Amino acid sequence: MISKSKTKLIRSLERKKARQQERCFVAEGPKVVGDLLAVMPARMVVHTSAWPVPDGMGGKTETILVDDEELRHVSFLQHPQDVLAVFPLPSRGDGACVPPDKLSLALDGVRDPGNLGTIVRIADWFGIEDIFCSRDTVDAYNPKVVQATMGSIARVRMHEVDLPAMLSSLSPDFPVYATMLEGTDIYTQPLSSYGLIVMGNEGKGVSPAVRQGVNRRLLIPSFPRGRNTAESLNVAVATAVTCAEFRRRDEARQRGQAAG
Amino acid sequence: MISKSKTKLIRSLERKKARQQERCFVAEGPKVVGDLLAVMPARMVVHTSAWPVPDGMGGKTETILVDDEELRHVSFLQHPQDVLAVFPLPSRGDGACVPPDKLSLALDGVRDPGNLGTIVRIADWFGIEDIFCSRDTVDAYNPKVVQATMGSIARVRMHEVDLPAMLSSLSPDFPVYATMLEGTDIYTQPLSSYGLIVMGNEGKGVSPAVRQGVNRRLLIPSFPRGRNTAESLNVAVATAVTCAEFRRRDEARQRGQAAG
Repeated sequence: MISKSKTKLIRSLERKKARQQERCFVAEGPKVVGDLLAVMPARMVVHTSAWPVPDGMGGKTETILVDDEELRHVSFLQHPQDVLAVFPLPSRGDGACVPPDKLSLALDGVRDPGNLGTIVRIADWFGIEDIFCSRDTVDAYNPKVVQATMGSIARVRMHEVDLPAMLSSLSPDFPVYATMLEGTDIYTQPLSSYGLIVMGNEGKGVSPAVRQGVNRRLLIPSFPRGRNTAESLNVAVATAVTCAEFRRRDEARQRGQAAG
Repeated sequence: MISKSKTKLIRSLERKKARQQERCFVAEGPKVVGDLLAVMPARMVVHTSAWPVPDGMGGKTETILVDDEELRHVSFLQHPQDVLAVFPLPSRGDGACVPPDKLSLALDGVRDPGNLGTIVRIADWFGIEDIFCSRDTVDAYNPKVVQATMGSIARVRMHEVDLPAMLSSLSPDFPVYATMLEGTDIYTQPLSSYGLIVMGNEGKGVSPAVRQGVNRRLLIPSFPRGRNTAESLNVAVATAVTCAEFRRRDEARQRGQAAG
């Protein structure tokens, strides 16, 4: 049985303002909740009898057993999945620094929650640990984003930053890549094992303010060249193709060193 | 002004059964409708005064001028975009043969309309002209799929087939690739410039019946190897990374021949 005030609290976490006031966010389903529990304790877990409570849970975590009807009432999903948990919002902000020796992602106005969630999942797959989001990127702790990450949000650090200011604070030598239709073929360009890869808005691409901080413009070529084709690739798809090529080069370099 | 019977016809086209009975499908918005009009005449175009009727339209195309309220009433979109058109369903079926000298895609139970639409857009970008869909793949002319292709459905041939039967009819030498978690690193495998790339269902991957027809199993490696990471990539994302690598090899071969 869940109280009205707790139901109200959970439902309020659909809104960014409430998440920031309460300093917490919602995750749902055994996979996403399980991945997050592996890295941080939950504040509250609402579950049906179908969800096996992990050994050792308790302490600061309040667990509330509900029936399917009650879960449906608090859930943000069309088909609730046995468990919903409230986690503390990781506290990160403008103090974040770009790792100088690693590859990171920066997102400039990505608006679709499904795209952001898919990008977090891609970052996780390709071992990218930090994503820097511009203020007009959809909030990473929006319940739709959290679900679309399929649990990867537990393993990737999300930072909300003033992106143009962050870029202008970097050394001019630090590689800042972006894929753009006017860029140069990614497959013929040198790619470093560290740096920042900027991905732009779904419709407008990279904004003028952020473009000023980009020093290496890449193009994912269509095939065959010059054909009348799709105007662009979806932003998550472009992120994946770009990250895959950076990692392919990394591995090729490592194989080369091992052989040398 | 649009009649009740035409409104009813358009609304019915949300269902596959109605699309097959009427032999037509719906597309919306200037981009998607425009891309389709470039390759086939519409049966009917419903538009507001904001949509510029192309020169020379007419003949077999019935054009109906409506106001925003009427368009909202027939549209499948939350935010209708000035024009909705009804196009004849391309007639393709099991007679389709796999192009022996080209790269094609086969989809085994892809269920999400957004994923299928994104895959059609990826195929268009990478110059893949044919997609063979298993019977349990979401219908390519579902309005949600058509919209998610962003117009690419005009340039890619979609075939609905009995996929296991089609695969078993191919020569045993014909390359049939699939990405699977138990596959071999795509970056260290030979990739041909022709063949079939099979992508599986969002949750279950490639079905046992289709696996029997796959003779080259590929893996998109996560980075760094062996890390605890996302369990898998989204099916559209995996399609993009795979197609990009096939095309990168094609281009490298062509550069090699040009140099030799």
